[in-house]
Amino acid sequence: MATARELGLIVGTLPAGPLNAITDVAGVSVGHHTLSGNGLATGVTAIVPHAGDPFRLKPRAAVEIINGFGKSAGLMQVAELGAIETPILLTNTFGVAACTQALIRRAIAANPTIGRKTSTVNALVCECNDGGINDIQAMAVTPEDADAALEAARPGSFAQGAVGAGTGMTAFGFKAGIGTASRRIDIGGEAFILGALVLANFGPAGQLVLPDGRRPVSGAAEPETGSVIVILATDLPLADRQLQRVVRRAGAGLARLGAFWGNGSGDLAVCFTTADPIEHRPKSAFAALRRLDDAKIDLAFQAAAETTQEAVLNALCEAPATHGRDGRRYPALADWLKENPLR
Amino acid sequence: MATARELGLIVGTLPAGPLNAITDVAGVSVGHHTLSGNGLATGVTAIVPHAGDPFRLKPRAAVEIINGFGKSAGLMQVAELGAIETPILLTNTFGVAACTQALIRRAIAANPTIGRKTSTVNALVCECNDGGINDIQAMAVTPEDADAALEAARPGSFAQGAVGAGTGMTAFGFKAGIGTASRRIDIGGEAFILGALVLANFGPAGQLVLPDGRRPVSGAAEPETGSVIVILATDLPLADRQLQRVVRRAGAGLARLGAFWGNGSGDLAVCFTTADPIEHRPKSAFAALRRLDDAKIDLAFQAAAETTQEAVLNALCEAPATHGRDGRRYPALADWLKENPLR
Amino acid sequence: MATARELGLIVGTLPAGPLNAITDVAGVSVGHHTLSGNGLATGVTAIVPHAGDPFRLKPRAAVEIINGFGKSAGLMQVAELGAIETPILLTNTFGVAACTQALIRRAIAANPTIGRKTSTVNALVCECNDGGINDIQAMAVTPEDADAALEAARPGSFAQGAVGAGTGMTAFGFKAGIGTASRRIDIGGEAFILGALVLANFGPAGQLVLPDGRRPVSGAAEPETGSVIVILATDLPLADRQLQRVVRRAGAGLARLGAFWGNGSGDLAVCFTTADPIEHRPKSAFAALRRLDDAKIDLAFQAAAETTQEAVLNALCEAPATHGRDGRRYPALADWLKENPLR
Amino acid sequence: MATARELGLIVGTLPAGPLNAITDVAGVSVGHHTLSGNGLATGVTAIVPHAGDPFRLKPRAAVEIINGFGKSAGLMQVAELGAIETPILLTNTFGVAACTQALIRRAIAANPTIGRKTSTVNALVCECNDGGINDIQAMAVTPEDADAALEAARPGSFAQGAVGAGTGMTAFGFKAGIGTASRRIDIGGEAFILGALVLANFGPAGQLVLPDGRRPVSGAAEPETGSVIVILATDLPLADRQLQRVVRRAGAGLARLGAFWGNGSGDLAVCFTTADPIEHRPKSAFAALRRLDDAKIDLAFQAAAETTQEAVLNALCEAPATHGRDGRRYPALADWLKENPLR
Repeated sequence: MATARELGLIVGTLPAGPLNAITDVAGVSVGHHTLSGNGLATGVTAIVPHAGDPFRLKPRAAVEIINGFGKSAGLMQVAELGAIETPILLTNTFGVAACTQALIRRAIAANPTIGRKTSTVNALVCECNDGGINDIQAMAVTPEDADAALEAARPGSFAQGAVGAGTGMTAFGFKAGIGTASRRIDIGGEAFILGALVLANFGPAGQLVLPDGRRPVSGAAEPETGSVIVILATDLPLADRQLQRVVRRAGAGLARLGAFWGNGSGDLAVCFTTADPIEHRPKSAFAALRRLDDAKIDLAFQAAAETTQEAVLNALCEAPATHGRDGRRYPALADWLKENPLR
Repeated sequence: MATARELGLIVGTLPAGPLNAITDVAGVSVGHHTLSGNGLATGVTAIVPHAGDPFRLKPRAAVEIINGFGKSAGLMQVAELGAIETPILLTNTFGVAACTQALIRRAIAANPTIGRKTSTVNALVCECNDGGINDIQAMAVTPEDADAALEAARPGSFAQGAVGAGTGMTAFGFKAGIGTASRRIDIGGEAFILGALVLANFGPAGQLVLPDGRRPVSGAAEPETGSVIVILATDLPLADRQLQRVVRRAGAGLARLGAFWGNGSGDLAVCFTTADPIEHRPKSAFAALRRLDDAKIDLAFQAAAETTQEAVLNALCEAPATHGRDGRRYPALADWLKENPLR
Repeated sequence: MATARELGLIVGTLPAGPLNAITDVAGVSVGHHTLSGNGLATGVTAIVPHAGDPFRLKPRAAVEIINGFGKSAGLMQVAELGAIETPILLTNTFGVAACTQALIRRAIAANPTIGRKTSTVNALVCECNDGGINDIQAMAVTPEDADAALEAARPGSFAQGAVGAGTGMTAFGFKAGIGTASRRIDIGGEAFILGALVLANFGPAGQLVLPDGRRPVSGAAEPETGSVIVILATDLPLADRQLQRVVRRAGAGLARLGAFWGNGSGDLAVCFTTADPIEHRPKSAFAALRRLDDAKIDLAFQAAAETTQEAVLNALCEAPATHGRDGRRYPALADWLKENPLR
Repeated sequence: MATARELGLIVGTLPAGPLNAITDVAGVSVGHHTLSGNGLATGVTAIVPHAGDPFRLKPRAAVEIINGFGKSAGLMQVAELGAIETPILLTNTFGVAACTQALIRRAIAANPTIGRKTSTVNALVCECNDGGINDIQAMAVTPEDADAALEAARPGSFAQGAVGAGTGMTAFGFKAGIGTASRRIDIGGEAFILGALVLANFGPAGQLVLPDGRRPVSGAAEPETGSVIVILATDLPLADRQLQRVVRRAGAGLARLGAFWGNGSGDLAVCFTTADPIEHRPKSAFAALRRLDDAKIDLAFQAAAETTQEAVLNALCEAPATHGRDGRRYPALADWLKENPLR
């Protein structure tokens, strides 16, 4: 397979980071664990925000619920406190509980006072329904699978498409899954990165719009029943409210793909920054934080929209064709692009 | 033990329902399952909205996040779609995943197309941290415990205080747990009920204010680290936005107890109505709904505040004194009231 | 000038209504009043929801704040109560107060008990900053100008582009202003209309993306400082929460134009339905309401996105080139399209 | 008249500031302008956040809509950007437009590039309906009245009760109006102030609960039709999200008075901090900000609830009895307290 750029799909105007991946943000690592065979086509993808313990040093974060038809865990506390305190796990809808248990157990192992001398821990797990390809009722994902994805997390480039949590996902009638992209933002003489990782499983056949305006059709139109999870990471110093405004722009990236955030689609986004994280037990009452001049935030908004849009296209372009549980064929967008050259 | 009323604590001015319980709402049943021994003092409490299958006939509902420092599951979809589709389970913070799995399995057993031919199911599980009394790190609650609470659910009166999910909970330095209350609302010649069930585990010692203005002190002041879950049920026909406005008033009931919705307290409320539920697969495109004249909604607002306040007092009054894991004593409010008679 | 369709720009896949205008919704009328000369290039546009008195019969409505950098009046109460009770006026930023006063005076004249025996009235006035072309500091709009727009309101087709509130507005570096579009929705054997009217004054030069993927460039890039107001009207019976979900999709329509909801852009949308309005003083405590099956709401979502997108293109296509106060030229998109034919 | 404290009503446990007033926050000044005679009993109250130009140096702020049945202006932009850029004016419902115009004109006079070379200005004006006592349909408040209140603003103590915007306001069946209170918060060895100023015009007769649990009855119960505006000011360094959480606790203060945030009551709160304001045109892209350790924020929550509660009691205790337009008597709470001594 190939990336959207390699296949001629150019999104937006900002320059990509070195890997065009969320892992261009220093410290961020990603790992996959895939389950297949016996009717299974599912897995877990882990986004680890930094090399330390996120319970002790919490990355500041914000959440945007674009359309809340979904079962993700841990979003409420992120919205209230503006921080994440575990890695982020992506999986199928019925794997959320197992992934939650894994994150709790690991946090307790590293911090034995959790739930006793200090607060409990907020596990962040997001999901899409891969029931079209995967036997989701098997509830096959275990805490050990979550552990495997976390232990596989590495900095640098990583596989996209039908891998990890993306194994059984589809979008706009095509096979889809995991995708990523990044943008470089230059502000005040400094270079920053904003990257996206998506779990793309949304959009009815026929709704996809490519950056050049074409609408690749794949199979009969069906009601929207999927979802999409967008994880944004950056090293840009943003105040709480600014993070909130940035993560909201993930929805613009989805809309540019032709999505209208369908009724049955659990569309949500989480954005964290590695700048100025929050200590679990700080020594002093006040901590310093940097705040970007709002007049310069449009670059971050644009990067959020562009990386979301391109990450979804990568999820589509990197996934090979497959068949669903009912025999339906989910073609590869890469094949459609080769069969339908521009002009 | 005894109720708050029996101990002389009178809340508000509206008349109580026959049982002064959430089960005064026709069709609502409640069940407890308690775990104790071997360091455990925890459990599960089930609120079942009606006698049928809530996946097929979804009670309309609304959510209010008063302070989102919490780990409850399923709230996002209720906020988006305005309906619940499983019973509501209450448990300890680290029991959410097990209860979620039980609700998913039961829904699939009753509706084998879930996640395949139809959407997945949104399990609604709310929690507080009982780690002061219970060995929460044991993660002792199992899906079978959740099943037991669901199977124990009955209409009519039910135990309050240190039972089910309330077994290990404390509030304002006193032993607390499960409490309930109800109010009768007469509108347009018809009588309706609004009832509350709370899982009370919030409020630092010294902050509690009784309806007569007294402040019962129990032990040294400590930072707020608990939570409170408020479940409101009614048979009043309310439009979506009206349900949202009613559930918001649970926060007023908590504030009247002296709470200021502390930083570490995961305070939230869910309100459902048994009027005009939503069919999972309706035969016609449009369904009829009744909407209350907004000019008459103050009675429902008042009932939401009063039942929340009284249900917490009942949770306190019905719970006997006990000791925490570290030997700390959590006295009974009932004992304080007997030792401190008015006048 | 000509419409976007006449110039070859086709948006989406749903069929347009007879006039492709918000006035395709039965009962809705629109009027303009334009101020020009002496440095002025501004005005007022009125959207009247039905032929009766909206204070006595309030159309149900919902609001979406896409980016809240704006000074519109009356949105908070619409969000709380889910209804509008005056016509909607659009004007420039510093004309809001005058339009508010006009709406209050007219409501009092028709309902002398307002503010005395009954509640006050919530005037709904939305705005964009036309200071690039208009001498906005003159604060030239008067209550009488608002009256004139209201009295000019008629059913049927109406002028688009540089007229009424749109007189001094620009978008994406081109001259813009008022635009409209509509879609027919067939549900359950019945035909419904969803229409949009926009006041388009947003988007930096170079960000506009046409439905065919082209990016018409006009002048140097500048920071986003404009705004866009989207008014959606429908006759589809939608419950409160459904109206809220529909109006949210206006943001998708804007994003498809290349917008990322810029920092300085006050982007918001209001959607009202003519179905099942609310009586100010109903005779009975409960009113009947119809609710659409959520599984069929995607058509309304799609119509909201498509009409918003097309209405903005119409605002651009219908506006002739002009010059700003500082001599800057704002070209006509229609001219660009003629000079840049496809292939 | 006298303050609530002087009349024996003690609220909460935190120490008051030197003046027990919002002006205990260094830099904050308050001014009143009262209109009376010819059926008028209304006015304007100005809260000026610091001695400089708030358009150039914007205090960071947050808004909480407790019940949005109201017509205040400017809240949307505060919610989006987290800052105020004018003084805050309070007035009657139909005086909002005139006060808005005054704030715009003054901002333009001080910053002639507004609306031309830089953004427009967001005037913040909050309101209650004083139509029970004042001839609100006269729309008597003019921009010059707003100017007069702004020019009267001084640091130090100021009049409470039936003065400025409070002249015609009532609450719980008693005469009410303007009230204030403050609390000292000691964190990390430093002393901070959180102060409240309220415009109290809410609560049906019979709902008021005093801190000692008594319910002073005044006249027949009537539906809630008033409103309350709470302005909180502090010098505590709080991040955006923290300001949002603090201002939310104003609702707890109101609930402790017996309010349930009635349907017809436009209840809202604005909180600003004088710490780390935002420059309109900063020289560097990033500004430093301090953030309080969340584990210490409960003191600010408690102060927000206590000052709101006490400020309303002061508004009641400081207002003398009067008569409404229809001859109804609004007694003074101070008189009731003297006639009903404790024990």
